[in-house]
Order: sequence, then structure tokens, then C-alpha cells
Amino acid sequence: MTSTRSASVSTPTTFCCANRLTMAGPLSGLKVLDLSRFIAGPHCAMILGDLGADVVKVEKTMTGEDSRLLAPFIQGESVYFMMFNRNKRSLTVDFRHNKAQELIRRLATEADVLIENFRPGTMDKMGCGWETLHELNPRLVMASLSGFGLGNRLTCEPCFDAIAQALSGIMDLTGEVDGRPMLAGTFLVDYATGMNAACGVLGALMHRMQSGEGQMVDVSLMGSASAMLMTAIPEYLVFGREMSRMGNRDRYVAPANTFETKDGHWVHIIGGSDAHFPRLARMIGQPELLQDPRFARLEARLQNVDAVEGVVAQWAKAHTVDEVMAAVSKAELPSAKVRTVGEALRDPYARDAGHIVDIEHPVAGVVPSPAPAQRLSRTPTAVHRPAPPLGHDTDEVLMTWLGMSAEEIEGLRAEAVI
Amino acid sequence: MTSTRSASVSTPTTFCCANRLTMAGPLSGLKVLDLSRFIAGPHCAMILGDLGADVVKVEKTMTGEDSRLLAPFIQGESVYFMMFNRNKRSLTVDFRHNKAQELIRRLATEADVLIENFRPGTMDKMGCGWETLHELNPRLVMASLSGFGLGNRLTCEPCFDAIAQALSGIMDLTGEVDGRPMLAGTFLVDYATGMNAACGVLGALMHRMQSGEGQMVDVSLMGSASAMLMTAIPEYLVFGREMSRMGNRDRYVAPANTFETKDGHWVHIIGGSDAHFPRLARMIGQPELLQDPRFARLEARLQNVDAVEGVVAQWAKAHTVDEVMAAVSKAELPSAKVRTVGEALRDPYARDAGHIVDIEHPVAGVVPSPAPAQRLSRTPTAVHRPAPPLGHDTDEVLMTWLGMSAEEIEGLRAEAVI
Repeated sequence: MTSTRSASVSTPTTFCCANRLTMAGPLSGLKVLDLSRFIAGPHCAMILGDLGADVVKVEKTMTGEDSRLLAPFIQGESVYFMMFNRNKRSLTVDFRHNKAQELIRRLATEADVLIENFRPGTMDKMGCGWETLHELNPRLVMASLSGFGLGNRLTCEPCFDAIAQALSGIMDLTGEVDGRPMLAGTFLVDYATGMNAACGVLGALMHRMQSGEGQMVDVSLMGSASAMLMTAIPEYLVFGREMSRMGNRDRYVAPANTFETKDGHWVHIIGGSDAHFPRLARMIGQPELLQDPRFARLEARLQNVDAVEGVVAQWAKAHTVDEVMAAVSKAELPSAKVRTVGEALRDPYARDAGHIVDIEHPVAGVVPSPAPAQRLSRTPTAVHRPAPPLGHDTDEVLMTWLGMSAEEIEGLRAEAVI
Repeated sequence: MTSTRSASVSTPTTFCCANRLTMAGPLSGLKVLDLSRFIAGPHCAMILGDLGADVVKVEKTMTGEDSRLLAPFIQGESVYFMMFNRNKRSLTVDFRHNKAQELIRRLATEADVLIENFRPGTMDKMGCGWETLHELNPRLVMASLSGFGLGNRLTCEPCFDAIAQALSGIMDLTGEVDGRPMLAGTFLVDYATGMNAACGVLGALMHRMQSGEGQMVDVSLMGSASAMLMTAIPEYLVFGREMSRMGNRDRYVAPANTFETKDGHWVHIIGGSDAHFPRLARMIGQPELLQDPRFARLEARLQNVDAVEGVVAQWAKAHTVDEVMAAVSKAELPSAKVRTVGEALRDPYARDAGHIVDIEHPVAGVVPSPAPAQRLSRTPTAVHRPAPPLGHDTDEVLMTWLGMSAEEIEGLRAEAVI
């Protein structure tokens, strides 16, 4: 299963002038076992990998993690899979095999961190539940990501990002006032769950460095979604007010919305605070608005939001996008033309700022990808290796982590354990 | 400015059976100085506070952090401010005053972590730039959150969550196919930036525990937004395909969408993978779809997504929401009725799972709020204190962190430094 295909990565322009070859990430030496699938868990493990940890992804034999089957593909390699699994090595096991479960226990005994998002109970059924692993390795930090969190009546229900958006209320908060509830255009709950789990794992590791004690980290899609409800929870529970969707209107300042220009583009303009609004009024040539009691102060503008945004909409509709952008820039109002992803990527800024990294994959070739979101000055984050071909590192990991001989590994392979 | 008002917090039901009074969070003893405003920075600092760090929020005198002025209010206290600033103490300074800038340097000398999201360059102008603080305290980890990241041509441009959504392409990915680009219903980029920064800070602290070295963490709204573009970056840069919005349709499996029921509710149904689709076909009484070459396999369904989703839409429209939910539940398809925030909060699950925590604020009273998103078994996250009244802890922090006498503090107050 191992191969000698080399994997190299081009270096993005970085603030921290990183030299990848001589500087390791802050988690260098940390061993992470990633048993997770799809986005939330893999994203969590990938963040630790970006920070320099040695992440071993454990996948089922034959087909590997389910997301390897998702389109689109480059040379047969799933782009989706590649986006969430760089900086990892791949080891395959047949999870149903007793000897594979024993292997997982042995690997967990060597690991610092284990990440999993099986349906709750599955790890126990494999003999790899928290109590077992904790006894084998009291220093282990184990993160369980699930839809509904552990220890409640919904714990075992299946969940996905869209389900959490629908159930939590986030979806009802998104969309046009007279339209249906909308999903965000990205898997925001999955991402948030992965990031929250990474924070929990790192916090637990900090504690471990002082106490030697490992612990369990429980993070859920629903908990992560609830944590992004902004003021909606107290608004409902204290005032009995339901927040619902309101298009692109800001909830806290006015005017701030997306306006259409004469030539059919969309521009988002934020001019709602008491610091911004005078500049906006002058920009649109209507300084008299500042004397109008309906508009003079933020509180009044929020009450008369249709009127004040109507004035801005009328102004935008009378100008081209270039004229609008020139005006908002001169007025120093936070504003932007709404861009497609392609427009964003054609802007040299994307590469100048280091948000894109070209990852060379042994099969797919060069795959431009999002760069690590954290940039550290002394121990830089970096892409050290591409997403792994299935089972690429099984032998290597079994040899180095567990000290297995080539014969033992061949034996396991003959039994279809790995 | 100090007061004797007590602040207590009720304990949520937690998986980890936390006893707040005897168990501290994993970052207990860590000193964090939070100079940040609005959401991304405060959310980062709040995560560290949830994990047990001692977070001191430094605010401008008289009015405090700008978000204290944002509606809605409970007893004059901004709900918005309270949502992002629990588990912090408040210290006020006049940032423009030389002696205040000296105070910040002294506090940074005592701190483990400093978080700021001033416009890049502002910290330097105050004599509190990275080089200065690093020289004073080589162990300091400093996180700078900005719109565009450090060291590029847009570094000093202002940015907000909505601007990053518009510029990055996320907004163009959200909304109906024939509608305008939509903002997500929550500040997803701000949240992501805060979480990414927390990961970066914790990674840097891990490195510091081994090396003693502090460093700088650079996290941006645009970098965090780009990191959530899923497959859109390689799709455009490799295939030249623009991803754009497609309503609530899933990009990777079909059918998966939000369907209207006979009684006017919305239900999100995921039945698109090859594992799910046979169950869906039988559920809607059309097992013959499995023999139809247009629908038999995922790849074909993605090409005939209008047709396959049309069949499901027709079925949903012929049934009430109760009938639909009973059917999807029986078929074990991941599905949910789209709920308002109020509906989500009326479900006992929200409290049973510990996603809501009642925080007792000395002025606002009990404010139900989202709970920490991480749950740790041994060193639990918890809300130890409510968002602070402005300047509530100025004296206490100056005395305990800097060993100042009451006379010195009175002197600074007389000079309007604090």
C-alpha cells in the first residue's frame, strides 16, 4: 500500500516569511488519530495538522472515507475529500474486524489526540469507547463530534450541517423576508463544529501539559449552531420576540444592506452607525437627512429602516457600480461589490494575502486550495503534505507508531484486517 | 468604579457533571488581555474565557467598547455586548493618553495573551506594536484580527462580516438561483475568525510551553471566509467552473433540499446518497425510481436533479408536515422541519443538551445565553461571570496584576487615564 510517490507543496507568500523546511508548526510532534468522516471532524483534525501535528486518518479498507466518493473529481480524486484532509497520512483498517479494533486501541495508546464523529455508541461497540481508551492511555484527549451532543435523548439521532441549520433556527434567519428559509451557502455549522472541537482539544492539551491528565471533549453541531444565534436567544427568552430573516438588512445598524446598481450589480453598503451615517448622507447629496428626526440617530433610523434604505436604494439604482464604488470609497464607508468566487480569485489580493495555497497531489496534480486560516510568526502553519491516497501510509504508521515488522503487517493484510 | 455587586451563574445540566465551584477550566491561571471590539476578537477572547482563562477586557473610558451602544437593551445593558463578553472583567483606559498606553504595555508584560482588532497600525501608534510588546514580554502571544490580514496592500482597509461575505464569494453562493446574493443569517465570518484566532493562540501557547517563546498570530476575516469556500477554489482554478447559489439544494448529493408541505411548512430532507436514496424512493411509494437510469446512481441523480427533486417536492406538497416527518423518521432519513429560533428554544432538548445557560447579570438580571460550545469532561468549560459592567474591575486588575496602590489608582483616575 505504501508508495514512493513524492508529495511537495509550493509555498504561499506569507506574512511570517515562513521557511517550511526549517520551521515546524507549533504542534510539531503531537500525534493525532483521526477516525472522522465528512467535514466537521476532518476539519478539526486538519486544523491540528495545519498547526504541525502528525495526523493519521484511519479509513475503512477498500473504499476509504465516504467523502472520497463525492464529486467533483480530478483524476479520480475527490476534490471534496482533498479539501478537508491535507496534512494527514492515511491508514486503512476493516473497522468490523476484531484485530482492527485491537489495532485502533494500540494506536490510541500511542496517540495524544483521537477525533471521531461516528454515531454515538459506535466506538463503544468497537471496544474503543472513552472508558477503555482512557484506561489504556490516561493522557489521551478524545474529541467526539456529534449532531446533538452526548448524554441527551437525541444523542443517537443522525444529523448533518443542513439539519442543524434547520433545527437551530439559523436557516429561518437567512433569506428574503417574503422568501423561504435559506441555507447559508457554505457548511457553516460543520466548519464551526470543527473549529470549536479544535479549541476544546487544544484547551485539553494545555491542561494535560500541567497535569498529565487526558479528557473527553464533547462538541455538537446543534451546540455549535446555537452558539452562533447572536442575540436571538435572549431576544426570544427575555422579550418573547422571534428573530426571523430580513434579507440582507443588518439587525443592529441602519442603513446597511445590499443595493442594486444601475448596471445590475449588487453592492453591500454599511452606513448605519452614528459615525457612518453623516458620511453616507453627504455622499448621496442629502445632508438634510441629518436634521430629519426620522434619521438623525441610530435608534430612529432602525425604526424607519424602510425609508432610510429606500433613499440609498434609489441613489444606488441611479449610478453604475463603478460610480457607487468610487463614492463609497471616497466617503470611507465599509462597502463591497458582491463578487463571485471567480471574481474573488482573479483579484491578485487572494494570493498576495496568502489565502490560496497550491498543493501538489501525487495523483490529482496541483490543486489550489484554501490556505490555513491562522498565520503564526515563529512556528508557521503550512501545508506539509497533500490529502493522502487511500492507505498510503498504513505500513509506515504501523512500523513507526507500533514498531511492527513487515511480516506482522503482511499477516494483517492477508487477514484483511488492514 | 469597582462595586460589590455580586455576579452568580446558574449551572446548566452538563454531560460532564461539572461542579463549577471546585473544577476550573483547562486554561485556569492564563492571563488574557482583550483589547478587541465587536464580534471576531471578543468571541476569540470569550472562547478562552469559557475555557477558564482570566480575561481582562480593556475598554475606552466613558462609553466603553462601541458595541455597548447597540440595541437591544435590557435595563440599559446591550444584549449584543453581553453575548460576546461573558467570562471577562472590564478595565477602562483613555487609549489616547500616554499614561494609558504605558499601562497597556505594563499589563501586556504581565499577560500571557493579548488580542486586538484595531485597524492595523493603531497598536504601533499607541507604542504597543508587536515588536515593543515582544521585547517587553518575550513569552507574550499576540493575536491580531483584521479584515484583510497583515502585510498586504489591503491591510489597512476597514472590513466587517458582511463585507467579507460579499468580497469572498460566500454571499454569491447563498440564496435562490433567481434571487439576489444573500448574507447568511448569522455573522459566520466573524465567528469563524474568532474561532480560528483562538485555535492559533492555543497552538502558540502549546509551543510556548515547550520553548518559552511567544509569537504573533495573524487571522483575518477574508482568510477565514476563504477557508470556508469548500470546493469552490479548485472548481474555479482547476476547471474554470464558477460555483454560484443554488437555493437549498445540496452541491454533492441529490435529492437534498427544502420542500414545502401541504400545510405550508418547510422540511429539509437529505436523501441523496446511494445509501439514502433507496429508502427515500420506497418512502414516497416509488421504488421504480431505483430502476430508472436517470436516478439509480448518485452521479445520474446529480445530472437530473430537477427531475428527482420534483418528484420529492410533489410528494411533500401532498402531505402535512406531521405526515412528512413521520415518514422520514420511519425511513431513517436525516431530515428536519425548519424551525424558528423560538420553536428551537421551546424544545426541551435545548436545555437538556446544555446549549442554553442562564447568566445572572448584576444590572440586566437573568439573561439566557448560548452555552460554551465545547464540553470537557475533566476541566469543564463554564460561565464563571457575566459580561462586565463598564470599568467594573479596573481597580482590582491594576492592584492584582500590577501591584498598584489605591493612591496610584486614584492619581490615574484624577488624570483621566483610567
